[in-house]
Amino acid sequence: MSEIFVFGHQNPDTDAIGAAISFAYLQKELGKNTVPVALGTPSEETQYALDYFNVPAPRVIEEAGSQTKQVMLVDHNEFQQSVADIKDLSILAVVDHHRIANFETADPLYYRAEPVGCTSTIIFKMFKESNVVIPTQIAGMMVSAIISDTLLFKSPTCTEEDIQAANELAAIAEIDLNGYGLDMLKAGTNLSDKSAEVLLDLDAKSFPLGDKNVRIAQINTVDFNDILSRQDELEATMNAEITANGYEMFILIITNILDSDSELLVLGNSLDKVEKAFNISLENNRSFLKGVVSRKKQIVPQLTEAFN
Amino acid sequence: MSEIFVFGHQNPDTDAIGAAISFAYLQKELGKNTVPVALGTPSEETQYALDYFNVPAPRVIEEAGSQTKQVMLVDHNEFQQSVADIKDLSILAVVDHHRIANFETADPLYYRAEPVGCTSTIIFKMFKESNVVIPTQIAGMMVSAIISDTLLFKSPTCTEEDIQAANELAAIAEIDLNGYGLDMLKAGTNLSDKSAEVLLDLDAKSFPLGDKNVRIAQINTVDFNDILSRQDELEATMNAEITANGYEMFILIITNILDSDSELLVLGNSLDKVEKAFNISLENNRSFLKGVVSRKKQIVPQLTEAFN
Repeated sequence: MSEIFVFGHQNPDTDAIGAAISFAYLQKELGKNTVPVALGTPSEETQYALDYFNVPAPRVIEEAGSQTKQVMLVDHNEFQQSVADIKDLSILAVVDHHRIANFETADPLYYRAEPVGCTSTIIFKMFKESNVVIPTQIAGMMVSAIISDTLLFKSPTCTEEDIQAANELAAIAEIDLNGYGLDMLKAGTNLSDKSAEVLLDLDAKSFPLGDKNVRIAQINTVDFNDILSRQDELEATMNAEITANGYEMFILIITNILDSDSELLVLGNSLDKVEKAFNISLENNRSFLKGVVSRKKQIVPQLTEAFN
Repeated sequence: MSEIFVFGHQNPDTDAIGAAISFAYLQKELGKNTVPVALGTPSEETQYALDYFNVPAPRVIEEAGSQTKQVMLVDHNEFQQSVADIKDLSILAVVDHHRIANFETADPLYYRAEPVGCTSTIIFKMFKESNVVIPTQIAGMMVSAIISDTLLFKSPTCTEEDIQAANELAAIAEIDLNGYGLDMLKAGTNLSDKSAEVLLDLDAKSFPLGDKNVRIAQINTVDFNDILSRQDELEATMNAEITANGYEMFILIITNILDSDSELLVLGNSLDKVEKAFNISLENNRSFLKGVVSRKKQIVPQLTEAFN
């Protein structure tokens, strides 16, 4: 029986890595020959969680087809966010909490999506439904993923189910939710030694909007000035990526995880669509968005409507 | 709070109607203002079940947008099988057991697909997970849907979960599975008074394969000759529909529900793709397919591969 690869999206965040580890574990307990892999190296935030719970980082793959034909996707479904050769693979299962788009299969599959704040919250329910015990290390990665995706429950994507799951998992993982959570989030905001290329690729996804391709990156910080002091350098890199990849637009969301607000930095064409979508005027390519922290809930739907 | 419409695919079969009724009931018990509707009138098989369990047929709608913006889909996801204005609606939930294709949303949603034989089997699990009691009438429609989709457990799409669910539901519905099941299936094979147009539309779906649109209809019978004696009339109608709708091909699957075999009748272009997909030679536009009863598992994947 060949291995079944389980992985999250490109530029993996803590949920993409944590959900791959926990879902691969659950499926293995249920008799499948699953192994977690990743489409990139862990961020510093994710590495903090891996180190804390003594979990090895999943092996990074560039493609899957030379090693297996069977995969399970977590925390994403859109093909442009997945492994490069996804169209040649058989997708056995998806567990996700995003919109569904640019996804199709030839055969019936297991697909479980719920509009909650974190994929790991759904996987937590699946552990319960299957009566599989959650080990400490796995619980630690799952609660880290929920803290990360919900910004410690401050994101509007956060639901009662996420909070409930996080509390139960924190007890299993033997952590203090707030203390551990803030330490982990802050570990991800130490960005001064990173190049603009790296910063813009930490948590970046491409979205087909209308007939255009839009790149949307997000950076968490505890001080806007840490990032905005490098605006010139960031803009040069964003423009280079727009040219190299044919993006209609590059949007950088800089999110203050302590205040739960964001600054947008936007380059490219169709800037009027961004201004219309959020009822803002860009000045110096920037605008402040009060209370906005969620790309999925507060950015992408509004842009989707503006582009349609 | 406006109503949320719950419906199955066009040309509804017993699962499309039964799953809409049962899922709308479950969601209503969970606090949603759901109402089952249908994208067509019940077949004679479905009407047999509705009459037996004294359940009113869902209201037929042509479009949804003038009445509600919020919908839940059961037993389908592909937009070309759904309500005409599906792209203008907000899809809150999908419960299905088919491949995923030609489906997308702007927002995260609840999506539950499992590779089992019948949508109603998944809904049965959801009743259990939610601790909602299943009334006799609802159980009756759900077990009828499982009997229909699995041809009384003879289809290769049938899983242990379908059989288990059907047995538990039959107990609640107070029926003898085999006796009721055969009576219901036979009620759907009384086709002599139906025009070729009606026959070809009873259980027909369009599938985008490669860059072509292929129509695939299925008719259940207890005697091939009941259908094949009308081959000339059927072919004339199939050719007319190919012309009117630009289908690349029209495939009619005639399935003997007693022997669990099928005859294919195929018209249009790319006939070599059909011959290659099933390793057959069409004679008089026909070929016998031993042991083939499932469009979803034994026809569509093979054709998808042939067209790619």
